[in-house]
Amino acid sequence: MGDFEPVSVGIVGASGYGGVQLVRLLLDHPNVDIVYLGGQGSAGKPFSDIYPHLEHRFKLEVEPVEVDRIADRCQVVFLSLPNGLAWTMAPALLEKGCKVLDLSADYRFFNLDTYQAWYGGDRTDGEVAASAVYGLPELYRDRIQEANLVGCPGCYPTASLLAVAPLLKQGLIAPETLVIDAKSGTSGGGRQAKTNLLLAEASSSISAYGVARHRHTPEIEQICSDLAGHEMMVQFTPHLVPMVRGILATVYATLRDPGLVREDLATIYNAFYRSSPWVKVLPSGVYPQTKWACGSNLNYIGIEVDPRTGRVIVMSVIDNLLKGQAGQALQAMNLMLGLEETAGLPTLGFYP
Amino acid sequence: MGDFEPVSVGIVGASGYGGVQLVRLLLDHPNVDIVYLGGQGSAGKPFSDIYPHLEHRFKLEVEPVEVDRIADRCQVVFLSLPNGLAWTMAPALLEKGCKVLDLSADYRFFNLDTYQAWYGGDRTDGEVAASAVYGLPELYRDRIQEANLVGCPGCYPTASLLAVAPLLKQGLIAPETLVIDAKSGTSGGGRQAKTNLLLAEASSSISAYGVARHRHTPEIEQICSDLAGHEMMVQFTPHLVPMVRGILATVYATLRDPGLVREDLATIYNAFYRSSPWVKVLPSGVYPQTKWACGSNLNYIGIEVDPRTGRVIVMSVIDNLLKGQAGQALQAMNLMLGLEETAGLPTLGFYP
Amino acid sequence: MGDFEPVSVGIVGASGYGGVQLVRLLLDHPNVDIVYLGGQGSAGKPFSDIYPHLEHRFKLEVEPVEVDRIADRCQVVFLSLPNGLAWTMAPALLEKGCKVLDLSADYRFFNLDTYQAWYGGDRTDGEVAASAVYGLPELYRDRIQEANLVGCPGCYPTASLLAVAPLLKQGLIAPETLVIDAKSGTSGGGRQAKTNLLLAEASSSISAYGVARHRHTPEIEQICSDLAGHEMMVQFTPHLVPMVRGILATVYATLRDPGLVREDLATIYNAFYRSSPWVKVLPSGVYPQTKWACGSNLNYIGIEVDPRTGRVIVMSVIDNLLKGQAGQALQAMNLMLGLEETAGLPTLGFYP
Amino acid sequence: MGDFEPVSVGIVGASGYGGVQLVRLLLDHPNVDIVYLGGQGSAGKPFSDIYPHLEHRFKLEVEPVEVDRIADRCQVVFLSLPNGLAWTMAPALLEKGCKVLDLSADYRFFNLDTYQAWYGGDRTDGEVAASAVYGLPELYRDRIQEANLVGCPGCYPTASLLAVAPLLKQGLIAPETLVIDAKSGTSGGGRQAKTNLLLAEASSSISAYGVARHRHTPEIEQICSDLAGHEMMVQFTPHLVPMVRGILATVYATLRDPGLVREDLATIYNAFYRSSPWVKVLPSGVYPQTKWACGSNLNYIGIEVDPRTGRVIVMSVIDNLLKGQAGQALQAMNLMLGLEETAGLPTLGFYP
Repeated sequence: MGDFEPVSVGIVGASGYGGVQLVRLLLDHPNVDIVYLGGQGSAGKPFSDIYPHLEHRFKLEVEPVEVDRIADRCQVVFLSLPNGLAWTMAPALLEKGCKVLDLSADYRFFNLDTYQAWYGGDRTDGEVAASAVYGLPELYRDRIQEANLVGCPGCYPTASLLAVAPLLKQGLIAPETLVIDAKSGTSGGGRQAKTNLLLAEASSSISAYGVARHRHTPEIEQICSDLAGHEMMVQFTPHLVPMVRGILATVYATLRDPGLVREDLATIYNAFYRSSPWVKVLPSGVYPQTKWACGSNLNYIGIEVDPRTGRVIVMSVIDNLLKGQAGQALQAMNLMLGLEETAGLPTLGFYP
Repeated sequence: MGDFEPVSVGIVGASGYGGVQLVRLLLDHPNVDIVYLGGQGSAGKPFSDIYPHLEHRFKLEVEPVEVDRIADRCQVVFLSLPNGLAWTMAPALLEKGCKVLDLSADYRFFNLDTYQAWYGGDRTDGEVAASAVYGLPELYRDRIQEANLVGCPGCYPTASLLAVAPLLKQGLIAPETLVIDAKSGTSGGGRQAKTNLLLAEASSSISAYGVARHRHTPEIEQICSDLAGHEMMVQFTPHLVPMVRGILATVYATLRDPGLVREDLATIYNAFYRSSPWVKVLPSGVYPQTKWACGSNLNYIGIEVDPRTGRVIVMSVIDNLLKGQAGQALQAMNLMLGLEETAGLPTLGFYP
Repeated sequence: MGDFEPVSVGIVGASGYGGVQLVRLLLDHPNVDIVYLGGQGSAGKPFSDIYPHLEHRFKLEVEPVEVDRIADRCQVVFLSLPNGLAWTMAPALLEKGCKVLDLSADYRFFNLDTYQAWYGGDRTDGEVAASAVYGLPELYRDRIQEANLVGCPGCYPTASLLAVAPLLKQGLIAPETLVIDAKSGTSGGGRQAKTNLLLAEASSSISAYGVARHRHTPEIEQICSDLAGHEMMVQFTPHLVPMVRGILATVYATLRDPGLVREDLATIYNAFYRSSPWVKVLPSGVYPQTKWACGSNLNYIGIEVDPRTGRVIVMSVIDNLLKGQAGQALQAMNLMLGLEETAGLPTLGFYP
Repeated sequence: MGDFEPVSVGIVGASGYGGVQLVRLLLDHPNVDIVYLGGQGSAGKPFSDIYPHLEHRFKLEVEPVEVDRIADRCQVVFLSLPNGLAWTMAPALLEKGCKVLDLSADYRFFNLDTYQAWYGGDRTDGEVAASAVYGLPELYRDRIQEANLVGCPGCYPTASLLAVAPLLKQGLIAPETLVIDAKSGTSGGGRQAKTNLLLAEASSSISAYGVARHRHTPEIEQICSDLAGHEMMVQFTPHLVPMVRGILATVYATLRDPGLVREDLATIYNAFYRSSPWVKVLPSGVYPQTKWACGSNLNYIGIEVDPRTGRVIVMSVIDNLLKGQAGQALQAMNLMLGLEETAGLPTLGFYP
């Protein structure tokens, strides 16, 4: 890869947390150049007006969001926009030869009906949507390598699906018993000012939200169903935790075979993730802290079996802004470009 | 109650968080006087050497822990000690006519075998233990009124049991589906210095601990079984949340009758807690934040039904140091003394 | 005071942190009834729509802000509005016989020119403004007792002025050496959504703001000058600290008499605050934590002298929402109504 | 540097925060290999028993601390021990040809009398101590390049000295007016369990400590005196802030020439730090947040002049564990080895 010509990369929607993480990661990636930053509200301003601490590394100006301007300059485009906007741009970018990675929900669904039932809107890009690949490399690595359009997973689905994939793929659990209790730092809510995300409100407190109706539910169910080989539902509850970054998904399910012990499952998980450099299965009795993953693209998984109840409890942690968002998008980009899956991605969290 | 002679109260183990909360609450209680503070390590020191901010209200000195000294002066004794110590003192105090409220696990169990299986030790106080009442007033109010010895519930059991009691009492859920995912601030771990409770470790992070083996499990199961009328097990997982105070228990269970809707359950909960001034059932779509309860003795309960999965999800919050510990002990003391259940207890949290 | 007829109290601007603290404190005050809540945006809604955790204690609805409606029902009115609004209402309320306590900056200045230089606006209420008393009871107790209009101090000025008042009054320091480095929790910024107050931004970080131009500077200077008996300036720098509540002011000044020792100053402070129940001067070597004050109306003061440099360092902590805002307003109200200065105010913080 | 043979590096005292940061940074450094980890308490255990999240990158075992064992294998040795231990090992390591970087206070002082007055002990290594260089590259770059023994600066001195160096070097301020009000995250207190560093104690609170007697005072004064060309004292007050990482030093001093404006000072600072890649002087009106620096080796400096008072206010932020400790030690190591000063060090913070 020594003589690799740097790939030209653009980011649309650069001013939010997704954007600034993409910038941070791409700046340290050995094979790419950021050549375009797009934003509606901040067009014309230097990026360092929004993030002064990056000025010494990055002097690009935010530009208007125009398809031609982007496609002329970029081989790869990251769309980091609110839900419902990416699909108005992605088809044109693809047509002009760009590879597109969308960080919103627009291209996460196999079926646009599901999207429209949970997100609304009136999509007219059915054919393009059908070509999109769900960007979770640990499950869809081969297809991502061939893709031109990737719908990057949500943060909660990433933590949740990596926790349950081996169980469902091997048919080890009763699907109707699956409960996912997930906990996220507040950066998952983005950088826009909302009262409930104020430090004075969200700090020193924890609460559930979106109970029985959070929009990551159908996304999790879609992939679980794909893994299980049949339609299934999950009970998913997100919680807001007083911390900036990190997601912990605590997953509960009843084992079909009550004779299975923790070591059996650890063996299965290690085999399942043998070729996945970003997933780390922890030894017996070690449970992951979100802090361990933060700052890296890693996913740590702890496994416990309760012989009294016959349940498996899986704990899965990620940095919601890296493996849950920008880092995972880069991981997918690496695959799309034929690079090492780990290229340019941090392997050490910033603990403590 | 205007001419009520103040009751003389003593606290053994006053230097921890349980002790300082008891002091704070008892100082503002209209019907009691604190006449004794006991501590092994801090005997001979003014209490305000440990907590300088209380000096203007409270000048008592910590004294050695000696049964005669205590019984001579106190009508009511709170034992706020590590597990395994209360049972070496309580029988003698009771014999000398004291009413005793124990904040440890020593007197929480109907059956000493369960205690010894989970906590160890070689108990010789079987008869006294058999006379103890489980100090959760919302479930055992009448018996607490008659009791001389109360084993005050753990913090997690309090939040969890108040969440599930109406469901189990009415037989509304399939008991084997019960999952309790609980989240606590770090003050639940006490004031002793432990590395995992350092701000630098516990802040900006969340993790599970004691998975499938936390010692509050048998306590929850004992009371659930009592409510359900048959032996049952629960899946209980505690988590450490980066905040000082507060517990949220998120409870999942499958409804036996899939036709039940949220309003049915709200009606049942409101009826169940009609005479319980400290439990507040929230309206539809409102989910409790721990912050709302902190600083008060209140328990807020939010209820949701997921018609897709047939599960009920109950969210229950308390201040772990008040309703989960010192406040609940005072509530029980009020009942033991024939006072109003609410006497001297804060009804407004300190939000934000 | 047993037969005191409850005083009718109204709050204009009830939906912010100042409002909700006033509600919380007034509900537990033995001598008042809240009879009116006013708000522009939330008129017509029950207050418990905004703060569901208070529903069990308080069912009032927010009403439109109309002077007649208020004056007809209220003997005392708290104005908890953004700067620049109180002065458009206060004169009419006073004329109709209400006692008015303003929590904004509008009535804090002896001289409207100073106000207009720092806050702008075109004030036409000069005579009314001249009748206002600066509502810091520890310095202006007698005048508050006679006042009908009180301009309640800012949070930073309260912590700062209580720290320096004895020094300036006794002429102990060189005025031009006075540096006040103040640190506040983010609730001081109010409940409105601002990006810089998001948990994801403000948590895990500290920074200065408003350096050399914060609008509490002229307020501090005005009272310092009054105490010193001559015009003087101060160096005041506020900082945003990742916590909800609390202010610490660390004050530096050079002693005029290098022979003064800590004990001399402690004696002077204790004498100065002899009749001030809310100020607590800490013993030698004890420095206040903001946490000690939070939840109470107390001000804790720690004093140190550096014999090497000849400076005194004073540390002063308050709860910015209580002694720094709503609690202090109640303290002033108590004085205006001839009640005990401590009536209805919490004397115990909620540590930890 | 392409054919550079990796340098063999050892760390003594690897289990604390200094140690784990050194490991993290050295693992990503292109020119070194970690070949030895020493610890007394944890000898014989894999490092990943202490820090399980690093297991995938680092499988070394902690070894006993023995000079021969270390010197045989290491060209460079980092000593990350409590104060008072390094000087018992460093002379022997130097004699055997190792380059030594000490992270404790042992080799920070030009004069052992000062060390002994503030730290105690009975030093017998005067000659070796005299050969040590103070490891702040921005001030002593040339001497570090020649050194075999470097005493790495304390965290507070680093933030403070970078803030004041240009002012003192140019004689711009009245030295006796210098006040440094510093704020630190709790990781500065290390990983050992102490009650005052518990989350339940330190969170939601701020307080000063060590007022007028913190042991970083003589270290700051020594370098300030060296810069000023004459003996001088400083007023230094540290504060404990509820966050994990980061230091902000807010510095106050009176300008000798009242005609100086902010732009003059910005020019002087930029010139002073022209060859210092880790110091970033911020533009007018931009004040640094600690969060910007965390995760990088950067120091951000904001400058303000108050024309009313004639004072300059300088705000300086660093990550206390990187530029304040392990990062700075690597920066010095780079210089000692003739590498680029920036080699292997992160230039992008992990904001948010």
